[in-house]
Amino acid sequence: MEKLIKTIEEKLYSYVPNIDTLEKKVFDSMKYSLSAGGKRIRPILTAYFCELNGGTLEQSLPFGCALEMIHTYSLVHDDLPCMDNDDLRRGKPSNHIVFGEDTALLAGDALQSLAFEVLSDSKTRDLVGDTACIKAVNCLAKRIGAVGMVGGQVIDLEYENKSADVTILRTMDDKKTGALISAACELGCIAANADDKAINDAVRYAKALGLAFQVVDDILDITADEKELGKHTGSDKENNKSTYVSLYGVEECKKLVSQLTEEAIGCVYGESESAQKLRELALSLAQRNK
Amino acid sequence: MEKLIKTIEEKLYSYVPNIDTLEKKVFDSMKYSLSAGGKRIRPILTAYFCELNGGTLEQSLPFGCALEMIHTYSLVHDDLPCMDNDDLRRGKPSNHIVFGEDTALLAGDALQSLAFEVLSDSKTRDLVGDTACIKAVNCLAKRIGAVGMVGGQVIDLEYENKSADVTILRTMDDKKTGALISAACELGCIAANADDKAINDAVRYAKALGLAFQVVDDILDITADEKELGKHTGSDKENNKSTYVSLYGVEECKKLVSQLTEEAIGCVYGESESAQKLRELALSLAQRNK
Repeated sequence: MEKLIKTIEEKLYSYVPNIDTLEKKVFDSMKYSLSAGGKRIRPILTAYFCELNGGTLEQSLPFGCALEMIHTYSLVHDDLPCMDNDDLRRGKPSNHIVFGEDTALLAGDALQSLAFEVLSDSKTRDLVGDTACIKAVNCLAKRIGAVGMVGGQVIDLEYENKSADVTILRTMDDKKTGALISAACELGCIAANADDKAINDAVRYAKALGLAFQVVDDILDITADEKELGKHTGSDKENNKSTYVSLYGVEECKKLVSQLTEEAIGCVYGESESAQKLRELALSLAQRNK
Repeated sequence: MEKLIKTIEEKLYSYVPNIDTLEKKVFDSMKYSLSAGGKRIRPILTAYFCELNGGTLEQSLPFGCALEMIHTYSLVHDDLPCMDNDDLRRGKPSNHIVFGEDTALLAGDALQSLAFEVLSDSKTRDLVGDTACIKAVNCLAKRIGAVGMVGGQVIDLEYENKSADVTILRTMDDKKTGALISAACELGCIAANADDKAINDAVRYAKALGLAFQVVDDILDITADEKELGKHTGSDKENNKSTYVSLYGVEECKKLVSQLTEEAIGCVYGESESAQKLRELALSLAQRNK
């Protein structure tokens, strides 16, 4: 896994060159957040699903990097004062604290564009073909747009100061976190030119994994060590936010995570190396402490 | 021209349906700015360049609408308090005044995603083919990213409170306004499967037109009627901003506009209806008063 993360990060950084032109500041801002660490779960999922469907790691990399760019843009915009107003991200000052709100806003915008640039550049087209590239663009654009990731953020804002029931919470998380995790799994399949059945299985895996991921996040906001987690804890409670923990309690949530993890594992067939890794990944995400 | 604008706007609005789900607010916010008027110059350019190269109006429409979505997203983000802090846009309250900063930020983000969704959806693929679609995605993504439109905005921020010389001003405008106008012309060619020579001519036309457009904007900021223009005038001077007018004076700027307009006209060959319209468009933009 560590070797895979290193390969992903090398490729990721290669898309943001060191420049010394008038736009230097926005490149620095983009690089700052892209290289701020993180679990790189999305490109890892893309790589595993690509291999599961007979593709290569190399074919998955541009798609995986595009997903990480989108994930990063969403964090940069999320931390802005007009959104969550978070000064700290992954244990480091947030992008707008270092570069200013205006540059952080623009760096987020440019990261979104860069993701689509990478999905469509000539090297990516040569690797996976034009049809796979255009399918990937469409899948990603839908998953992150107003009915996907951004839609989830809008629902989140709407329910900031009023209590949400489980149906609303699930709809919100399905979009806010689930949509991009789904895109990661789908883009792995698309890079390998997999059929619809494989894509459907990947989406089911992603939905269970994504929800488990969010429930674990809610648990960690209550139970984790702030230093280890790299961000403030207890913020959900402070903000009177409805979470799985506030609705079910920590113990029930742990059961839900186990159940969802089993569900995810059940969507991956065969004994190939990538199948095993996908099952292990679901387990390790359920047991994470940061 | 009016009929064409009506056709473009109908298509544009069809991409943002009326919904009544939890994400309603972001859709309302997106629609508010998409339907706030404007000259629709970018989709018009796309239509004319598509027809100039043997394509149909229908083939140009999805690409043109994508450009208008990007243009709209850039205006919504530009007006935010952390950027230009403009309460007024096209004579109406800015998006964030009506919907709040958080929703305006997200609506801008979702408009960018929607542009790429439209460039890659199955109807667009059937109309122009996968290769044209993926080329359009790549062209647009590059033109609006950190070396394009966003790069221009970053340079603009950098020189907000210091004086810029003509070279810097041209680089900035070439990116800030020119890049998207260039993409509009290029995407028209791509929709028609035109060759590289045609695309090069379109870029040269766009560069001259885009710069002329910006110089006219600077002139109008000094000379126009606020009510007619639909936004505050004199802001460049108030903000001590270097503009073509502050560097050259109004009279020299008017000469420069004529010269650039001639240059643009010289890039369009033939006597076809679309060629004539492109020449007329360059002339009318030079003579506009809003």
